Amino acid sequence: MKLPLGFRYASAYAGIRKIEKDDIALIVPDQPANAAAVFTTNMVQAAPVRRARKNLIEMGKVGAVLVNAGNANCATRTGERVVQLSCAAVAKALKLAQKELVFPASTGVIGVELNPKLLTNAVPKLVQELSPENFEAVASAIMTTDTCMKVASEEVPFKDGTIRVAGMTKGSGMIHPNMATTLAFVMTDAVVSPKTLREILKAGTERSFNSLTVDGDMSTNDTLLLMASGASQVKPMLKEKQVLAEVVAWVLESLAEQIAADGEGARKLIVIRTVGFNTCEDARRVARAVANSPLVKTAIAGSDPNWGRILSAAGYAGVQFDPSDIDVELQKTVVCNSGLAAEYDEPELKKKLDEKEVRIRIINKKNGKGEARFFTCDLTEGYIQINGSYRT
Amino acid sequence: MKLPLGFRYASAYAGIRKIEKDDIALIVPDQPANAAAVFTTNMVQAAPVRRARKNLIEMGKVGAVLVNAGNANCATRTGERVVQLSCAAVAKALKLAQKELVFPASTGVIGVELNPKLLTNAVPKLVQELSPENFEAVASAIMTTDTCMKVASEEVPFKDGTIRVAGMTKGSGMIHPNMATTLAFVMTDAVVSPKTLREILKAGTERSFNSLTVDGDMSTNDTLLLMASGASQVKPMLKEKQVLAEVVAWVLESLAEQIAADGEGARKLIVIRTVGFNTCEDARRVARAVANSPLVKTAIAGSDPNWGRILSAAGYAGVQFDPSDIDVELQKTVVCNSGLAAEYDEPELKKKLDEKEVRIRIINKKNGKGEARFFTCDLTEGYIQINGSYRT
Repeated sequence: MKLPLGFRYASAYAGIRKIEKDDIALIVPDQPANAAAVFTTNMVQAAPVRRARKNLIEMGKVGAVLVNAGNANCATRTGERVVQLSCAAVAKALKLAQKELVFPASTGVIGVELNPKLLTNAVPKLVQELSPENFEAVASAIMTTDTCMKVASEEVPFKDGTIRVAGMTKGSGMIHPNMATTLAFVMTDAVVSPKTLREILKAGTERSFNSLTVDGDMSTNDTLLLMASGASQVKPMLKEKQVLAEVVAWVLESLAEQIAADGEGARKLIVIRTVGFNTCEDARRVARAVANSPLVKTAIAGSDPNWGRILSAAGYAGVQFDPSDIDVELQKTVVCNSGLAAEYDEPELKKKLDEKEVRIRIINKKNGKGEARFFTCDLTEGYIQINGSYRT
Repeated sequence: MKLPLGFRYASAYAGIRKIEKDDIALIVPDQPANAAAVFTTNMVQAAPVRRARKNLIEMGKVGAVLVNAGNANCATRTGERVVQLSCAAVAKALKLAQKELVFPASTGVIGVELNPKLLTNAVPKLVQELSPENFEAVASAIMTTDTCMKVASEEVPFKDGTIRVAGMTKGSGMIHPNMATTLAFVMTDAVVSPKTLREILKAGTERSFNSLTVDGDMSTNDTLLLMASGASQVKPMLKEKQVLAEVVAWVLESLAEQIAADGEGARKLIVIRTVGFNTCEDARRVARAVANSPLVKTAIAGSDPNWGRILSAAGYAGVQFDPSDIDVELQKTVVCNSGLAAEYDEPELKKKLDEKEVRIRIINKKNGKGEARFFTCDLTEGYIQINGSYRT
């Protein structure tokens, strides 16, 4: 992977998780980096989310990201204290001017008290291990029920030199749009103002993390952070800014796709595309309703081309349309034509539905300009097994 | 069961289902009965739903209910024709004045063409078998993936005599509020006007079928019909009307509870109660979000008192509240106190969560007057198994 210049990474086992696997991580720009973030819109928010939002508004910059992936630090008496003490420890060890430059994030079980010492004790080791090489170690440490690490990167030659964008994220349950869903950290070494970062992040999030659902549950801890170290000394000008925005969006989309593909218990990534609807909002609603339908997701799990469930889910999306205008394609095979069963080779289609990636396309023949895309995964026994015994 | 006077029932096997189990049924009042109905709000509606709505608006009465439980008769080329021919056959066999007095309903797979002859050929046999005794045979014939028959009845002594109310319904996937969800037929022998029936049905539906979710999927065929034969010759007066409304609501609630308890793959009924919220609408939204959360439902399946998921689902319901005002009770045990973990005996509570009925109570200590109740079920591997291979 081509990694952005100007960032160092470290992970360690702090004893927060029961099993000995790194559960704490640090991402540190060489200098406090311009940054933008989006957070969960849940009314119940973890202490680190509240603090990170406050710090970022105050400082506009991030001097270090401290991630605890063993405990959500949410709905606990110790939440604030853990954040306070651990951020202070990081600021001190890194000699940051202010502890508000530390951006805390966490994920894990809700409502379980956490001993702040577990975090503060781990800080010296973390700081000592900081290295540009540890990007993937951190990506791996932030995993909870994920079965694989989720990273993406890209580099782009601009007029004044090359810039890099790299991101990491974690899934894999409690995934639903309306904010960043889950933790994601995206770094670039381009020179970018906080304002531009906010615009880039907003547009990119809409196309990626806000177009993603695993189970319709929205977490209390979701945080998506974009930082620019400026270490490439390349400042994108004019159209280059748009290119940078595209590249960040591409990295975010890749991360979102990886989350869907690794949804809890998932065997298949499902990509839903809606076209021809009145507005993009209408197209989005239809795509989201289909993406959230357990009946569609179990049908795909069973490689069953049960397009009636797709049409039915579209029908309760709260969008006006005439069913006789609707075509549905599964793996590029037309299964529903003008709202009615199309002729297709069912055994052949079932075989295509066994693939790791299933594409559903819903076409409104009224030919409106509204279109959208949504990522999700199939719903299998594995989801139940993972979530019926997560805590115990 | 004490059944309302003035109705006859019949069921038969018409060859619509693959397995030989009754798949067609008839409910016939001795005289066309005053009636009210609610239907799915899905944009995609089965032919019988469209026709039943139209017929009822036109006639205000129902002379016969024809149910096909083997094929949804939705999104097919033959949909209209099947309805037309089968209703005509029933009207003729019963010597009804108009074929519009026949109220068609159907449930089953979507998008599979249906031969109208299967229905019309079965009509003579159905008519021949009509009997007041066959109530449960019909309740059993309308079942699809249900594991048990769902019926409820009640009788009430009024000043002028006794009246009876009895209902039947079927589940058990594609269950979501916003209309009658699924098929349900409720009969009374009281003398009631269509207008009063509509009021009674609306109020009762809100408390029962619109407070029920299995998987968040809303069907294309949902129909809930209330008929009054008047055969008791008892006309409820003044306060008796309210009593009748209560009794109908009670029957509907019982049916809704039975659907939740027999949700696809379900092992447990979950009853969610929310109290102390600003408005009943707020309370309903919170209860619904918790009822729809796969994470809550899988936790209950695993007897895991993971109240953090309950609090988190409440938090994304779109309702303003302060998490530190919230208490959560599981089986009457306080698990979350003012948004924080309460002390409780976990092994003992886990044992209580093994019971067939799990009660979740969410209390907003702001003491608002808004309260609500929602029915749902746990989410198990069984749901996946049933729905991954329903068609094939």
